[in-house]
Amino acid sequence: VTARTAETRAVERANQAFYDAIENSDLDALEAVVLTGPLAESVSTVHPGWPVLRGRAEVMRSYALIMANTEYIQFFLTDVEVAVDGDAALVTCTENILTGGPAEEDGSTGSLVGGLVVATNVFRRTSEGWRLWAHHGSPVLAEEDDDESGVAADDAEDVDEALAEGSGADPLGGVLGEDGDKGGGSDVLDDRPGDDDTEE
Amino acid sequence: VTARTAETRAVERANQAFYDAIENSDLDALEAVVLTGPLAESVSTVHPGWPVLRGRAEVMRSYALIMANTEYIQFFLTDVEVAVDGDAALVTCTENILTGGPAEEDGSTGSLVGGLVVATNVFRRTSEGWRLWAHHGSPVLAEEDDDESGVAADDAEDVDEALAEGSGADPLGGVLGEDGDKGGGSDVLDDRPGDDDTEE
Repeated sequence: VTARTAETRAVERANQAFYDAIENSDLDALEAVVLTGPLAESVSTVHPGWPVLRGRAEVMRSYALIMANTEYIQFFLTDVEVAVDGDAALVTCTENILTGGPAEEDGSTGSLVGGLVVATNVFRRTSEGWRLWAHHGSPVLAEEDDDESGVAADDAEDVDEALAEGSGADPLGGVLGEDGDKGGGSDVLDDRPGDDDTEE
Repeated sequence: VTARTAETRAVERANQAFYDAIENSDLDALEAVVLTGPLAESVSTVHPGWPVLRGRAEVMRSYALIMANTEYIQFFLTDVEVAVDGDAALVTCTENILTGGPAEEDGSTGSLVGGLVVATNVFRRTSEGWRLWAHHGSPVLAEEDDDESGVAADDAEDVDEALAEGSGADPLGGVLGEDGDKGGGSDVLDDRPGDDDTEE
């Protein structure tokens, strides 16, 4: 195991610990993952669809709130990519989320809902290990095709094709709603490569 | 000017240069902002509502696509916060976006659409200045109140209040749609402080 690989794995573990803490509704475990010290005030989090929350205390409160209002949640991480440079590490991943609504009045389990969120997580190296500096999660609003990979597209050919076709990608991914251009950014990613560039 | 302040300003300028490049549809200017070198493959971008795009070439192609399909776009950045630590810098900000749809058939200007996006931008220090390592933008789906500040909430009291009220914040910010709990994460942020704290 090279030092580089060991570092990458350490960051991966920190990233997994972050999601495990939320999954287990374990605020103490989350406290252990989130950065403390001089940078604590600059810790930031964006929950999907939310504005930015800043400062460790504020971020922790939001998780306490979420945990208190979540009956059940499970993260299946896919497409996890880690890049380490010096004392900073960048993780991008796809959160395949399964979450349960509140229990029914008769006590039965609430309905399960699935969701696709992409995250950018920034970690800092500390004397005690890698700690989360910033988390940004956002909903994937692009339409899915039948491809079962479930991972984010990372094939340059898609963008090339979309460019050639002149599909209407817009910088807001069509999220503004008013704009009739329904294609939006999703066109670029609709036709995901399961295998290769032999697309119709 | 302290070294710290000078650094922060340099990062702010790099962040502004990033948005200026998109606003001016200037791909060369954008090339100059985005990180090159050994980390180029790990450069990542999430456009609002999109999956993750990875690798400098892929990211640049997506911007070329967006520029080619955007008649008009303007970013008013608010709530810009910069934290510098060593060779990494974290920027969070709110992008108040004004964008124009395609021109009408009669040649008149397309309709303008506004949107609120929050961004987490990660910069790396290089010998040539600060360069963008990661950008993650996402739509703010929380309902706005009448507060005209237009900035993201950063007041801990909001979360406390929401906690006390037991509003149904969920980790997906209600973006999954199926879940009838319309309150979602937005409740936490509805009541935004215009001027509460004495923060810069």
